[in-house]
Amino acid sequence: MPRPCSVSDLAGLRLVQKEYMTAYAGGDAAGVASLFTQDGQLFPAHTGIVSNREAIQAFWQGTMDLGIRSISLETLETEVLGDRCTEIGHYTLLGGKGQVLDIGKYIVIWKIETGTWRLYRYIWTTSLPPPGPSPGTD
Amino acid sequence: MPRPCSVSDLAGLRLVQKEYMTAYAGGDAAGVASLFTQDGQLFPAHTGIVSNREAIQAFWQGTMDLGIRSISLETLETEVLGDRCTEIGHYTLLGGKGQVLDIGKYIVIWKIETGTWRLYRYIWTTSLPPPGPSPGTD
Repeated sequence: MPRPCSVSDLAGLRLVQKEYMTAYAGGDAAGVASLFTQDGQLFPAHTGIVSNREAIQAFWQGTMDLGIRSISLETLETEVLGDRCTEIGHYTLLGGKGQVLDIGKYIVIWKIETGTWRLYRYIWTTSLPPPGPSPGTD
Repeated sequence: MPRPCSVSDLAGLRLVQKEYMTAYAGGDAAGVASLFTQDGQLFPAHTGIVSNREAIQAFWQGTMDLGIRSISLETLETEVLGDRCTEIGHYTLLGGKGQVLDIGKYIVIWKIETGTWRLYRYIWTTSLPPPGPSPGTD
């Protein structure tokens, strides 16, 4: 039966999450990608499924190049089952001056790989309203 | 340890998925919502987390009112752990004339509630490119 993550599960997740945020804020896309399982996947909007670490690294390099300088994650809920953990949370994306570029929510399916929690499936959606239509369009 | 869904798990999921698509195509938002757990949640783009069946029903009624007439789901991967199943797939949204309005990917965390698979957590992202800027804007 599912149970909330134990203290030691959560400590492990928190550690990886902290590594994740630190690597991202340091502009280290390879470091971010290394926190995913070898067969990790991202499910970003406006593109197909991003599979494997090389593609994941390139994806995060792309968001860094777009000016997203840091990612802040706030866990709302976790459930662990064997070597998987599902996590639900809120994210905030910040620019170089600390300005909020996006807020939204995410689901991560974590997986234990070689004894450590790694991101296995990662999907998120913005909570901001869609860009409004330009005047004169519909 | 996780395992792919068994034949009987998958048969149960398929049945609920078929009910889901049928209820949606029939314009039955309450029927769609009834296939979620009592504490089900949606994570749509451009809004916050949608929690509980009443809000889920209102959400799908809203997409029906916007002209999304049917939802087609194609499972890519499942993993079952106890009374949870994670499913990854592709979706297609169709309009009244069968025209494709959106394509994308989704993650569903299924949960067994009173002996039946129910949608527990549901998130999806479009795979279409973002709307292009209008001429003269940036």
